[in-house]
Amino acid sequence: MSTQIYDRVALIGLGLIASSMYWAIKRGGLAGEVTGFARSAETRDVAREIGLCDRICDSASEAAEGADLVVLCVPVGAMAAVAAEIAPVLKAGATVSDVGSVKKAVIEAVGPHLPDNVHFIPAHPLAGTEHSGPRSGFAELYDNRWCILVPEGADKDATERLRRLWEGMGSNVDEMDAEHHDLVLAVTSHTPHLIAYTMVGVADDLRRVTDSEVIKYSAAGFRDFTRIAASDPTMWRDVFLNNRDATLEILGRFTEELFALQRAIRTGDGDALHAYFTHTRAIRRGIIEAGQDTEAPDFGRGAASASESGQD
Amino acid sequence: MSTQIYDRVALIGLGLIASSMYWAIKRGGLAGEVTGFARSAETRDVAREIGLCDRICDSASEAAEGADLVVLCVPVGAMAAVAAEIAPVLKAGATVSDVGSVKKAVIEAVGPHLPDNVHFIPAHPLAGTEHSGPRSGFAELYDNRWCILVPEGADKDATERLRRLWEGMGSNVDEMDAEHHDLVLAVTSHTPHLIAYTMVGVADDLRRVTDSEVIKYSAAGFRDFTRIAASDPTMWRDVFLNNRDATLEILGRFTEELFALQRAIRTGDGDALHAYFTHTRAIRRGIIEAGQDTEAPDFGRGAASASESGQD
Repeated sequence: MSTQIYDRVALIGLGLIASSMYWAIKRGGLAGEVTGFARSAETRDVAREIGLCDRICDSASEAAEGADLVVLCVPVGAMAAVAAEIAPVLKAGATVSDVGSVKKAVIEAVGPHLPDNVHFIPAHPLAGTEHSGPRSGFAELYDNRWCILVPEGADKDATERLRRLWEGMGSNVDEMDAEHHDLVLAVTSHTPHLIAYTMVGVADDLRRVTDSEVIKYSAAGFRDFTRIAASDPTMWRDVFLNNRDATLEILGRFTEELFALQRAIRTGDGDALHAYFTHTRAIRRGIIEAGQDTEAPDFGRGAASASESGQD
Repeated sequence: MSTQIYDRVALIGLGLIASSMYWAIKRGGLAGEVTGFARSAETRDVAREIGLCDRICDSASEAAEGADLVVLCVPVGAMAAVAAEIAPVLKAGATVSDVGSVKKAVIEAVGPHLPDNVHFIPAHPLAGTEHSGPRSGFAELYDNRWCILVPEGADKDATERLRRLWEGMGSNVDEMDAEHHDLVLAVTSHTPHLIAYTMVGVADDLRRVTDSEVIKYSAAGFRDFTRIAASDPTMWRDVFLNNRDATLEILGRFTEELFALQRAIRTGDGDALHAYFTHTRAIRRGIIEAGQDTEAPDFGRGAASASESGQD
């Protein structure tokens, strides 16, 4: 097949990201055979039942052996152990990549275990939903989303090949260094998630407002927070433990600005509030112009409909 | 027409909320004539051009005179002046209502101006989009959303009639007292908005991450914040100035919890983070079960499509 980029791809870990990769690889005819492994026997059974991967293996080594590309799709905290386990069976010239939400910590955890004759090219697809597990994947997840490669001096041809795979799965691809990646993501993803988790926790903790009130009246703002705060707990624990410095830096700036707005509310400084809110509105326009969202109003009916997620 | 609830309705202020009310009233045949007024001549011209309201008047008094229901759809900070202006022309037995996001401050601002022979029944429809102005309204905005009435001892028949109007526009209707309303909304709407505004401001202020990076990589979490933070600045300024105490109380709890999570990140307490994130996930399930959102994944394509917003 002319679009085939790798003979054999191994997906280690079979959650939302890996299962979507499988369906996107099949859609594009991008690989000959895709093997898969998940630590949980139950997940492997589900994968076999729904036809996720061409072959489900009972160990990470079995899945990785002979593969031209091995993608680590496990939580960041589990990557070092997986890398150590598969290192002995990796094919010379193979590429090892990952899909972790942080990059410095992944490089530190995985890099030392890999032999010199493989290419290590970390990656991070900026896509996801609040669902997780092997049944949550779909081929369109990466369409028109960004995938960031962090080659850090890796072989140019191997990097170009991995770029073509992600482009074949529908992504736009960028490259940056690991430290910058971690800072950008702390701003655009990690800190917003922590804040959403916190706000949802506050609402639940408040005794004078009942849970049912919080839920009934969630349409006006809070609902978007709960969607963010429903993401996979293990993944997010590992994100914060592994992007600690950048997250703490952005949190520091956040509380500084929040206290300034809080002070404006307390002192009744309407001009300061109005100026701040006018400024943030312009940023939204930039995002719409960049094609990362639509201008269609979100009027409380929530996310893309099921029929939309099935479109090409 | 058997569904008609009021002979004459006056909408003072012609933004998203009022224009959606007009289209919803027409859809349901809920009123004989609907008059409208906006302070800006430009807005009145747009309204006449697009057929918004049966009759656009050049003063609030002209629009309100003879109406059975007058709805104040202006920012909270402008309500006292409008109430004072229309008070002399109000028909005996008429109902005056509003759509403000805070209720204690509206009652304090509007109540003293109204004559004793009208019914004052504040209301708050929990619906909106990030768009504003006379062109942004649509008939379906209130379908399956909540509208909270705050009758505070008002006439039962008049309250029941206003309830039927909101139900006719598609809403579910609840009643509560003003103080409780303001606390519930501080949790579910006002504080989340302030936090979203703050996070978007932080992202924009950070010199080491470029604006274009913030915009390009906004899919994972931050995008939802920018939608919230694009809402009307004047409306939100007035919300915070007028629901100060409840917002400051919730902000205090928020920063307390945020600092606890920040400390868990700093000390590497993964168990505490995981337990917190697992707990918030359950709240999301409650919202889906309550019908205030769908389970369809939001995979970065954003809000309801235009075709969805056009459905019945």
